[in-house]
Amino acid sequence: MRPRLALVPGEPAGIGPELVVRAAQHDWEAQLVIHGDAASLHRAAGALRLPIALHRSGEMPTSSRSLELVEIPHPVAAAFGQPEPANAASVIESMTRAAQACLDGTCDGLVTGPVHKAAINQGGIAFTGTTGLLASLASCQVVMMLANPGMRVALQTVHIPLRAVADAITADALSSTLRIVDTALRHQFGIAAPVIAVLGLNPHAGENGHLGREELDIIEPALEHMRSEGLSLVGPLPADTAFLPGKLRGFDAVLAMYHDQGLPVLKHADFANAVNITLGLPYPRVAVDHGTALDLAGKGVADPSSLFAAIRTCTQFARHRMHA
Amino acid sequence: MRPRLALVPGEPAGIGPELVVRAAQHDWEAQLVIHGDAASLHRAAGALRLPIALHRSGEMPTSSRSLELVEIPHPVAAAFGQPEPANAASVIESMTRAAQACLDGTCDGLVTGPVHKAAINQGGIAFTGTTGLLASLASCQVVMMLANPGMRVALQTVHIPLRAVADAITADALSSTLRIVDTALRHQFGIAAPVIAVLGLNPHAGENGHLGREELDIIEPALEHMRSEGLSLVGPLPADTAFLPGKLRGFDAVLAMYHDQGLPVLKHADFANAVNITLGLPYPRVAVDHGTALDLAGKGVADPSSLFAAIRTCTQFARHRMHA
Repeated sequence: MRPRLALVPGEPAGIGPELVVRAAQHDWEAQLVIHGDAASLHRAAGALRLPIALHRSGEMPTSSRSLELVEIPHPVAAAFGQPEPANAASVIESMTRAAQACLDGTCDGLVTGPVHKAAINQGGIAFTGTTGLLASLASCQVVMMLANPGMRVALQTVHIPLRAVADAITADALSSTLRIVDTALRHQFGIAAPVIAVLGLNPHAGENGHLGREELDIIEPALEHMRSEGLSLVGPLPADTAFLPGKLRGFDAVLAMYHDQGLPVLKHADFANAVNITLGLPYPRVAVDHGTALDLAGKGVADPSSLFAAIRTCTQFARHRMHA
Repeated sequence: MRPRLALVPGEPAGIGPELVVRAAQHDWEAQLVIHGDAASLHRAAGALRLPIALHRSGEMPTSSRSLELVEIPHPVAAAFGQPEPANAASVIESMTRAAQACLDGTCDGLVTGPVHKAAINQGGIAFTGTTGLLASLASCQVVMMLANPGMRVALQTVHIPLRAVADAITADALSSTLRIVDTALRHQFGIAAPVIAVLGLNPHAGENGHLGREELDIIEPALEHMRSEGLSLVGPLPADTAFLPGKLRGFDAVLAMYHDQGLPVLKHADFANAVNITLGLPYPRVAVDHGTALDLAGKGVADPSSLFAAIRTCTQFARHRMHA
C-alpha cells in the first residue's frame, strides 16, 4: 500500500499552488491528498500551462495522475504576489484539517507548502508558524530539523532573539530535545544506533570555560545524563569545525544550539534540496525549506526541488512507520 | 622585486615547523624570511626526510631555495606533540620580532603558523592570541577575516561568550569595523568598489523586530551612516540565506556579527584552503586557519594547504601595497 500524504499548498498568492501543480506532473510512491483550494490550483496550472486533475475524496479519479482533494475553499481569489488577509482563516483551516487527518489516521504523513505569517496575522489570527500550530494541535513538544542530502541539523532554540538564547539552554530543554531527536532518528529515519553531535553554545565550545561556562555547567552534564539513558552523543563540539565534511560523515544529526549556528551551513551546502522536518509529532511532517516567494509566484520559474524532496522524505518516514 | 614576507613557524612541538619545511620545497613569488628557531626546522625536516637550507640575513644563500633566517632560538628542544612552557618567551619573541620587521619596513608582510595559547600562558606570559598581540604592537584596531577561495567572512565580535554578543554590537563598533573592512578590500585586496554584506544579529535578521530589535535600533542606522560615508553595504541580511552561493557571488565580503554565525559555513565549504587575515594593521598579515595539531606533529601527514594559501595571499597583498 502506498502511504497517503496530506499535502497543503499554503499561501495561495505565493508559489505553493504552482509547486503542487509541478508535483502533479509526476508519479510518487505515495498518494497525495491535497488539503486546500481547487481554484488556486487550477489558476496556477493555467499560469504554468500544465494540466492538473483533482477528484474529491471518495470519488473515482478520472486519470492516473489525478490527485485526491479535501476542499477548503479560499473566499478570495488572491492575485499572484498579493496575499489576502481574508484568506487567513481558510489557509489555517487547511493546515488544521490536514493535521487532523494525520492524527486520526486518515493520512500517514503531512507535507506543507509555505504560508505567509504576516498575512495570517493581518487576517486576525495570532500565528507564529505552522510548526507551533501543529505542536499545539497534537499537544506535544516538537523539535525543528532541517535536512538536505548531506546533513541533518536539529535546533535547540529556533525563532528567539539571539540575546535570549543563552538563558534558554537548560538541562531539561536539552534532555527533552535529545530524546525527541534520538527517537525520531531510530523510528522515523530507521537508523538503528544513531550518533548525535551536539554543538557548544560559545565559540570553540567555550574553550574550557575561557569563552563561556555553559558547556561546563549545563551542556556537558546534560549530555552525560542522556548518555546514561543510552543515547550516543558526541560533544559539546566547536561549531566551526563540527561541520567539516569528514566529521559530518560520522554523525546522523547535529544539534545546534540556535538558528544561525546551524542553518547558514546547511542552506549554503544545498538549499534547493533542503526540507524542514518536525520531530516529535505522532505523525511525520515535512515542509518545504523556503518561503512564499511572492515575487516569483505565477511566473513558472519557482524551483520545486524542496517540495519534491519533502514528498520523498515524508514517504520514507511514513513507510518506516507502517512497517514498524 | 619580490616582496619579503616574515614567516613565523609558531609552536615548535606542533605542525608549524614541518609546514615551513613543506613550503621550503617550492618556489614562491615572495622571499620568505623565517623568524624562528633553526633547530626545530632541521628536526622537522629530518622527520619528513626533506631538505631545508637556511641562511642568516646578510649571508649568501647556498642554494636557490635557501630561506633567509632571523634566528630566535628556543631554549628547549620540545618533543613533537609536547609543547614546553619554557619556549613560551621565544615563541612570542619570534612573533614580535617579525611584527617589528613589518612595522619598520624590513619585511612587506607577515605569515604566521599556529601557536599554543595554553603553553604560552603556562610559560608565564598572559596571551589571548597572536592577532591581539599584533594589534597591541601596532597600536591599532583590527578586524579578523577568514577567507577561502569561495568567500571572505569578517567578524564583528570574535572570541567572547555568546551571552556577551548582543551588547557588544554597537553603532561605533560597527562603523569602525566597516571602515577597516572597506579600506582593506580597496587597498589590500585591490577591489575598486567593494560591496560588503552585513548580517543581522538575530534569526531572520530580526524579522522586522519580531525576533529582536538590534537590526532596527542599531545595525540599520549604523549602515545608513556608513552608506553616507560612501560605503556600499547590503543588509542587515538573514544569515541563513546570505550564504546561498548565488547571493555570495554578489558580495566582496560578509560581515558576521559573531564567530559561529560565519565560520561554520566557511570551514565546511573549504577548510584546507582557508586563511585568517588580520585587517587594520599597517602591514598585511595572513595566518593559517588551523591549530598546532599536536597529534599530527612530526608524522609528515599534516596538510600544508592553509600555509601555502597564506603565503600566496600575503604575497598578493604585499604586491598591491608596493604598487599602490
